[in-house]
Amino acid sequence: MKRILNIETIKYLGKEVRVRGWVNSLRHHGGIVFLDLRDRSGILQIVCTPDLAKDIKEEGVLEIEGEVKKRPIKMINPELETGEIELEAKNIKILAKTRVLPFDLKDLKVSLPVLLDWRPLSLRNKKIKAIFEIQEEVISSFRKIMKDLDFIEFQAPVIVPTATEGGAELFRIDYYDYDAYLVQSPQLYKQIMVGAFERAFTITKVFRAEPSVTTRHLSEFISLDVEMGFIDSWEDLMENCEIIIRNIFSGLEKNCDKELKMFGATLPKISKKIPRLKMREAQKIIFQRTGRDHRKEPDLEPEDEKEICDYAKEKYGSELIFITHYPTKKRPFYTYPDPEDPEYTLSFDLLCRGLEVVTGGQRINDYKMLLKNIKKWGLKIKDFKFYLQAFKYGMPPEGGFAIGAERLVKQILNLENVREASLFPRDMIRIDQRLSTLQPKKKRA
Amino acid sequence: MKRILNIETIKYLGKEVRVRGWVNSLRHHGGIVFLDLRDRSGILQIVCTPDLAKDIKEEGVLEIEGEVKKRPIKMINPELETGEIELEAKNIKILAKTRVLPFDLKDLKVSLPVLLDWRPLSLRNKKIKAIFEIQEEVISSFRKIMKDLDFIEFQAPVIVPTATEGGAELFRIDYYDYDAYLVQSPQLYKQIMVGAFERAFTITKVFRAEPSVTTRHLSEFISLDVEMGFIDSWEDLMENCEIIIRNIFSGLEKNCDKELKMFGATLPKISKKIPRLKMREAQKIIFQRTGRDHRKEPDLEPEDEKEICDYAKEKYGSELIFITHYPTKKRPFYTYPDPEDPEYTLSFDLLCRGLEVVTGGQRINDYKMLLKNIKKWGLKIKDFKFYLQAFKYGMPPEGGFAIGAERLVKQILNLENVREASLFPRDMIRIDQRLSTLQPKKKRA
Repeated sequence: MKRILNIETIKYLGKEVRVRGWVNSLRHHGGIVFLDLRDRSGILQIVCTPDLAKDIKEEGVLEIEGEVKKRPIKMINPELETGEIELEAKNIKILAKTRVLPFDLKDLKVSLPVLLDWRPLSLRNKKIKAIFEIQEEVISSFRKIMKDLDFIEFQAPVIVPTATEGGAELFRIDYYDYDAYLVQSPQLYKQIMVGAFERAFTITKVFRAEPSVTTRHLSEFISLDVEMGFIDSWEDLMENCEIIIRNIFSGLEKNCDKELKMFGATLPKISKKIPRLKMREAQKIIFQRTGRDHRKEPDLEPEDEKEICDYAKEKYGSELIFITHYPTKKRPFYTYPDPEDPEYTLSFDLLCRGLEVVTGGQRINDYKMLLKNIKKWGLKIKDFKFYLQAFKYGMPPEGGFAIGAERLVKQILNLENVREASLFPRDMIRIDQRLSTLQPKKKRA
Repeated sequence: MKRILNIETIKYLGKEVRVRGWVNSLRHHGGIVFLDLRDRSGILQIVCTPDLAKDIKEEGVLEIEGEVKKRPIKMINPELETGEIELEAKNIKILAKTRVLPFDLKDLKVSLPVLLDWRPLSLRNKKIKAIFEIQEEVISSFRKIMKDLDFIEFQAPVIVPTATEGGAELFRIDYYDYDAYLVQSPQLYKQIMVGAFERAFTITKVFRAEPSVTTRHLSEFISLDVEMGFIDSWEDLMENCEIIIRNIFSGLEKNCDKELKMFGATLPKISKKIPRLKMREAQKIIFQRTGRDHRKEPDLEPEDEKEICDYAKEKYGSELIFITHYPTKKRPFYTYPDPEDPEYTLSFDLLCRGLEVVTGGQRINDYKMLLKNIKKWGLKIKDFKFYLQAFKYGMPPEGGFAIGAERLVKQILNLENVREASLFPRDMIRIDQRLSTLQPKKKRA
């Protein structure tokens, strides 16, 4: 007999079937045992005698043969897709044993660090699984709209020979007889791709040696990177970004309604057009609203990002806002200066519910201007020789942006910590297990 | 006037349009200049006066306004989609200048190392672009069939705390105050995913510090990784692998006909069912055919893989063959031993046109058996504590495989070197540029 999925049993009323899955829960009830079997399609209630259920524990893996029956009316569970039926077990085979669980898997009343210590196990929890089903949908909606917009998908490199955007926060690799680094952003490569394909995107891992532990930073995260040539103006970039974000949200609305509900989450509200504010204007508004005078700061602080999002929600009914024109000094060498005021750049961040989730801008496409800036930023032309080919031989006006996938999921689900939205989060103290449990600290020279 | 794509001009006969692109070629012909403009949609012939074309060079970036006209019948080019029309330029604006090219971009008569030194430029060549359009299609067909088969896509980690499969060929990272490594395979993570989702796949980068330079190895490559739970037998894995490969080929047939033709490539022939041979049987056949006695070797040599593929083609009309039952000693600790002969494993490689392109097998899902093997392989239980959770608490019978994306593309297009199928190949001596041009060799203690 071929195994069928739990969800398929509803088509087999009165028939013998074989199912396989994990024991999600187990209840003894007089002379009967009720067992919820979990497989990738959902939950199925199994009814069996106590002797058939002996040696069975939660999370054990079973193969069960039995007859599909209608449940008594009182027992119908409208929340389950298989809620009107149950399987009367005739045979139960234990495919894999389990042990006593370290905590209740259905009701995870443990702290985040403990959940992460136990990720392979806690990942079986319905709500935690839902986070990564939502992540998959975010990425897949992103990919779909990018293909509709005629972008080519490429696989960006991870190992790089130099720092992309200046030196800090870089992980060094022993690369044969040389030094190499983990990529901080596929920036240079997506620009090279524009030189050949006009429009390119990549879904890739990027790495930052963050010097502190926060709820917003990961040492390894997923970047949804976009770059496009032949723009008419840098505003094209924000328009495309808006199209993409809207498509991600509508993908979630269509395919992840159930998962969003588990978190009581509603999709961030977008007004007809996402509002745009220059960084300096935002700082003025924040000063007026709160008395915090950050008007000379070169960037928005986390508390500023929250405040300006409150403002956008109140004033425009939008939980998203573009902040534009960041100072030239604070942006990488390739950022296009605003011709009207070269102290500032044609750059933007997209904030969502108080957190930056996208960053982008127009890039310098003129070879000589790039050479000048590389020097001005204190970098070596030699290190960018490869990249510069794309510009030396004709690069159209272009720009792009990058969406932080874990951050976006965090904001959509209102999670407290970005680590919850990363399958296997890496930070200063953790790679899967806590590093201190694996190896002694290095003694540095 | 809005820019339209070259391919769209055929709908604008007699009308004024604006196009943008790179100068693919330039020919002066009496008092007229013919210019092929290249954009992401293809080539468009521009006709203009010499004064309009002054300062224009190959690979320069232009914006051109003009009228779409029918070509004289003699001038029709049936090989171009826009071959029946041309654009009579009225205005040409140079969007980005270029310089004298280091070699002819249309006819790349330079060696592979030179092409790679100049990748950002050589990537503009039609045939080189086609390789990465084919790579994109391979990956996208793979993803599509995986979703049809009900697998979840996940993003596997790159930074890992320990060696996955034993210590060699590993890149070490300075990870804050600890050591970490680049992942050699998402193996452990995809198995953890099976514990939660039953079926999982990932398209991810993996890293091998290959100690030599060959035409088959890259230090960073794309792995298409599959893992599935609740298998009836390890043969399920080969059957699924075959379905996936057939889907990739039919995706290419449907969407990349033009690109395949550029290489004169035909898709590898598959017989009704891909033939299967045990490794020891293959060695016997090779001995009979060539006199090379490798019957006691623990693996097939590159020349053996070629020979057995010749055999499969002659005997079965198949350019693909599964080689099974590799010796237990040569496979990683998690490989399932053949119950009929535990010296060998329930493992397989798929060879295509003389080269291994897939490797896989059933995994040990029993916790105690895994513990025993970790010790037997000389590894530390402590290093696998995280991974082992997935097995301690119930893991179904499972297995999987990984397809090397660059190798598969190489074999499909009959490329000589796997580097040709990697956008930005990394090896002992190269990350983009040759490393020796960037930094001095390290002096090791």
